[in-house]
Amino acid sequence: MTLKLGVIGTGAIGQEHIRRCSQVLQGATVVAVTDIDLKSASQTVDRFGLDAVVLPDGKEVIDAANVDALIITSWDPTHEAFVLQAIAAGKPVFCEKPLAVTAAGCKRIVDAEIAYGRRLVQVGFMRPYDQGYRALKKVIDSGEIGRPLMLHCAHRNQKVDENYTTDMAITNTMIHELGVLRWLLDDDYVSAQVIFPRASAHTHAKLRDPQIVLLETVKGARIDVEIFVNCQYGYDIQTQVVGEEGIASLPEPSSILLRSKAKLSHTILTDWKDRFIDAYDVELQDFINGVTKSELTGPSAWDGYAASVAADACIAAQKTPGVVQISLPPRPAFYPH
Amino acid sequence: MTLKLGVIGTGAIGQEHIRRCSQVLQGATVVAVTDIDLKSASQTVDRFGLDAVVLPDGKEVIDAANVDALIITSWDPTHEAFVLQAIAAGKPVFCEKPLAVTAAGCKRIVDAEIAYGRRLVQVGFMRPYDQGYRALKKVIDSGEIGRPLMLHCAHRNQKVDENYTTDMAITNTMIHELGVLRWLLDDDYVSAQVIFPRASAHTHAKLRDPQIVLLETVKGARIDVEIFVNCQYGYDIQTQVVGEEGIASLPEPSSILLRSKAKLSHTILTDWKDRFIDAYDVELQDFINGVTKSELTGPSAWDGYAASVAADACIAAQKTPGVVQISLPPRPAFYPH
Amino acid sequence: MTLKLGVIGTGAIGQEHIRRCSQVLQGATVVAVTDIDLKSASQTVDRFGLDAVVLPDGKEVIDAANVDALIITSWDPTHEAFVLQAIAAGKPVFCEKPLAVTAAGCKRIVDAEIAYGRRLVQVGFMRPYDQGYRALKKVIDSGEIGRPLMLHCAHRNQKVDENYTTDMAITNTMIHELGVLRWLLDDDYVSAQVIFPRASAHTHAKLRDPQIVLLETVKGARIDVEIFVNCQYGYDIQTQVVGEEGIASLPEPSSILLRSKAKLSHTILTDWKDRFIDAYDVELQDFINGVTKSELTGPSAWDGYAASVAADACIAAQKTPGVVQISLPPRPAFYPH
Amino acid sequence: MTLKLGVIGTGAIGQEHIRRCSQVLQGATVVAVTDIDLKSASQTVDRFGLDAVVLPDGKEVIDAANVDALIITSWDPTHEAFVLQAIAAGKPVFCEKPLAVTAAGCKRIVDAEIAYGRRLVQVGFMRPYDQGYRALKKVIDSGEIGRPLMLHCAHRNQKVDENYTTDMAITNTMIHELGVLRWLLDDDYVSAQVIFPRASAHTHAKLRDPQIVLLETVKGARIDVEIFVNCQYGYDIQTQVVGEEGIASLPEPSSILLRSKAKLSHTILTDWKDRFIDAYDVELQDFINGVTKSELTGPSAWDGYAASVAADACIAAQKTPGVVQISLPPRPAFYPH
Repeated sequence: MTLKLGVIGTGAIGQEHIRRCSQVLQGATVVAVTDIDLKSASQTVDRFGLDAVVLPDGKEVIDAANVDALIITSWDPTHEAFVLQAIAAGKPVFCEKPLAVTAAGCKRIVDAEIAYGRRLVQVGFMRPYDQGYRALKKVIDSGEIGRPLMLHCAHRNQKVDENYTTDMAITNTMIHELGVLRWLLDDDYVSAQVIFPRASAHTHAKLRDPQIVLLETVKGARIDVEIFVNCQYGYDIQTQVVGEEGIASLPEPSSILLRSKAKLSHTILTDWKDRFIDAYDVELQDFINGVTKSELTGPSAWDGYAASVAADACIAAQKTPGVVQISLPPRPAFYPH
Repeated sequence: MTLKLGVIGTGAIGQEHIRRCSQVLQGATVVAVTDIDLKSASQTVDRFGLDAVVLPDGKEVIDAANVDALIITSWDPTHEAFVLQAIAAGKPVFCEKPLAVTAAGCKRIVDAEIAYGRRLVQVGFMRPYDQGYRALKKVIDSGEIGRPLMLHCAHRNQKVDENYTTDMAITNTMIHELGVLRWLLDDDYVSAQVIFPRASAHTHAKLRDPQIVLLETVKGARIDVEIFVNCQYGYDIQTQVVGEEGIASLPEPSSILLRSKAKLSHTILTDWKDRFIDAYDVELQDFINGVTKSELTGPSAWDGYAASVAADACIAAQKTPGVVQISLPPRPAFYPH
Repeated sequence: MTLKLGVIGTGAIGQEHIRRCSQVLQGATVVAVTDIDLKSASQTVDRFGLDAVVLPDGKEVIDAANVDALIITSWDPTHEAFVLQAIAAGKPVFCEKPLAVTAAGCKRIVDAEIAYGRRLVQVGFMRPYDQGYRALKKVIDSGEIGRPLMLHCAHRNQKVDENYTTDMAITNTMIHELGVLRWLLDDDYVSAQVIFPRASAHTHAKLRDPQIVLLETVKGARIDVEIFVNCQYGYDIQTQVVGEEGIASLPEPSSILLRSKAKLSHTILTDWKDRFIDAYDVELQDFINGVTKSELTGPSAWDGYAASVAADACIAAQKTPGVVQISLPPRPAFYPH
Repeated sequence: MTLKLGVIGTGAIGQEHIRRCSQVLQGATVVAVTDIDLKSASQTVDRFGLDAVVLPDGKEVIDAANVDALIITSWDPTHEAFVLQAIAAGKPVFCEKPLAVTAAGCKRIVDAEIAYGRRLVQVGFMRPYDQGYRALKKVIDSGEIGRPLMLHCAHRNQKVDENYTTDMAITNTMIHELGVLRWLLDDDYVSAQVIFPRASAHTHAKLRDPQIVLLETVKGARIDVEIFVNCQYGYDIQTQVVGEEGIASLPEPSSILLRSKAKLSHTILTDWKDRFIDAYDVELQDFINGVTKSELTGPSAWDGYAASVAADACIAAQKTPGVVQISLPPRPAFYPH
């Protein structure tokens, strides 16, 4: 049985997911697409030689009789409405992050899904599908390093453009850490604090860069995340877990060891798209398989909501010298650990 | 259009390839299988829920009207005959290494394919599909380290059983280096010499372990390959290319960096199956795509023949203290670089 | 000309320094020693076959006519008085850290030295003499990584005994970072904050372990120092400097790379005494040479004072959730950068 | 008691040793020097402010009443005669490598020393005093990796000048490996073979570069040494010991880990003088201490002879395609393991 997908939004990431579903992954086919720019939608159908119809809007894609499940890769502010419509239609939906642009919006999705009575939503957090993070979680869960006490993390981009502002360091960048670290530790955040070192000469007026976000968890672990989006040297993701008996670090991407020009060196990636490229395939295959087995197990609406609540607190913490509490409601039994 | 595959041989590797083609890769489906043990064939059909018939023997699979292409994973000595039959039937065939158990047998396949007039055969050398070897070739081809002068290689297994004999270090183990290094350097071997250090206490009477094979190439590069199949500590593949301006080494598999028990450590794999697991997927997808586009570009019958000629020389070199010449006929234009 | 040294205190570190001055270094000889336990003093003279007298107390050693310079390795609370007496006697003095047990005490020494009019005091901060820290400073000063924005540091001990209390994490452990980081950055501290993750199961009632100290500098750099003195796995000192254009990390101690038991590993030291052992030699030789040339350039009384002021603030910060200001008086011209 | 040294030869290495003995090490002083160019000798006395006389020739230095021991750093062909004169005078002598320019010459020294009846000679092999090689020997001797079966070594220089010829790859470069590997394995060489890859474009007519020397030992270990003296990228010394249960590699020199310009890199040394600089200090201090205790334990005349015999065989092997036997007489009891 082949899962028939409808895709809403044919921008860069939308096209990437269409390529995956139609050329790389198993068990799915794209049968309907749309975009705010219908020409882009048609061009995408042609580019990938899809046997798919172009529909006038997202609602029509969601309601199309031959569409079994949705992939939402449209403009962020439209995510919430489309996801709610998909739930109303009783159709499984993979929604790129953010699930909604506000925590309240995420909560409405959580409530709708619970009301529906079965999981339909997977949010696009791909890091839990990365082999490195999986290996790291395996070491933690094995007890080999004891209970995690501290996490030292870094999220570094080579550079960002003039439109990237201080708050986006949370919503567009650190959102990945907020998503993956809860999963890694099976824990939740209770407070956030933001520290601003002197700014790099490579940043601009609207962006305080770098910044350090300090998080505290329910279990009492302390997390520091360095966010540095103009680090110049490359795209570099670091996660070090300090446990009671040892320390485990996220693997560096595998690369050639070179002895040349008086340097013993490994290459550091510069394009973020290369860093987790394999994880996207695993993520979408898991969604396809989950829908086919009517058993979604990937990042849930609740995970999207929890990350959103934490993100709001981090943004508040950017504007105050002190510590900001993060209060997440109790986890509904509907979303088991 | 979906490629309909017939699989001859449902042993371990046969089942792995069936799993790939039916559950992981795109554009193919298994429609017919057979095995010397027909019960194994039927069980495989059931295990993977294939919509496939079990046929009495390889010839019937090859001739089956709905079979577009073959995958041969049967007992080594049967490879040659099945490949020749596939060529006679004008059907593309993926044959696990060795292409044939003798160089003469490989040559017969080369001649048959040339006589047929179009490439139909891909031999199962998967290392050229490994990301690490590809990255290594890219560095070499970029000229960044200058012309390759020396290669220092190691192929180490944790241990082998009592049935593994000295010659198998060439036919079952080093055959991988013989296959991949020609491709890596775009070069051929002209001589071989084998050196035997004192034997490890962990080997047995019929196996001289470790051994070092020295190869010389047409271009004058020198290659040393340490083969150590009872090294105890793990499965470890090393390839270091020493060029005129620098040195590039095959990446270590990516793994967690651990600080524990007074050691700063990475894990070394112990099971060879984990080392190149991704490469098998890429290899078979490339075969499927190549057949679909009627343009096979993977390891050819000629590559299988060249490796076989070199292997014969290495085995001869195991039995003499001196250098053994390797004389490969000129590469037919039919097999371009 | 050979510098004649008087040593006050023949405990572990005192004996180590005596061994250095009499058996390893050039240009000095030990001519007088004392200790609160005179028997220990005599035994030390015998052990190292010194041609030295044992005097009844520190004052006598300081005043001994044939003593050119002092090494003070006595009980911490006695340091201040001995250093002041040495200054009064106009004799150069090397004093193990802490220079005094209070910032006020350090300040009295600073004032006395300034009053005397010439540098006589070197405090026992040895890390600036470590090859690794020197290489790190060289990279920073070269501008290769741009201006330092953040430092991520860790000071980990395998374990400590029951007498080690929370405040000692500052006075005995982090004091090394407080000393070396000012020098590394040529900067001073303006505020401190302490964060306590959940405690390790390996600590005890009187010690909150681990803890994280956050420092801010005059230039606006942010420093986080993880102090974890029951980390179990080894003695591990980490210093990573994040600059505007790149990141430089303190070298790991050089060690054998081992492939064994499915691990690719380096050994991590477990005994702190091995970590900076070479630095002690360089430090004392520099003191001897400095005295001989009447030009002390090593860590000064001011450096000891500045570290003490910062340490007091860190201890205050351990007792409050917020940020504690660090106010160091302006640097006297007497102590140039 | 201070050892009074006479130094014959005040070239680069001679001056380095004089600096060590007079400014760094303990227990010795230079009291007499000479050089074929007496002006150089006087200038050296001035440069280091030595309280030493300049004597007209080596013989006078050796016979000088106040000279306790000799350091010979003169022109290679003069070593043998000076060492024999020192033995005749019953004075301990440290002689830079080579002990003599022929194996026969080394043998005459061995015979003279045995005839004298007590060890007087130490040859200047400094690698056994290098911390890395010592750590490597410690791992081997611990049995942790089982019996050594193979050694993979490399000796790479960035470049050499026009006067450096093929045979010098043995006499000036590999002589270090010939010296240290016997000590590392407590073994001797029985055969040598030399392999020449195609030459690097960076070499010249009189030098075949790189080359690979294959050695076999009495215990049956196999050693391959890559000698590449125009490798361009740096000065790089590699020694990997493959044992029955694991592999130990010589440590890389400790250096800053840098993240910059899309590279994660360590610096590779380019000047050979920096690589083993600490070892020279340890080596000479050991000589001074050994003489003082009348118990020399460093590299002996026998070690110099054994290396010379092996070097002669390697040079012969450069001129023949086959294997050249190395026949060293039985080790005299006078030179215990």
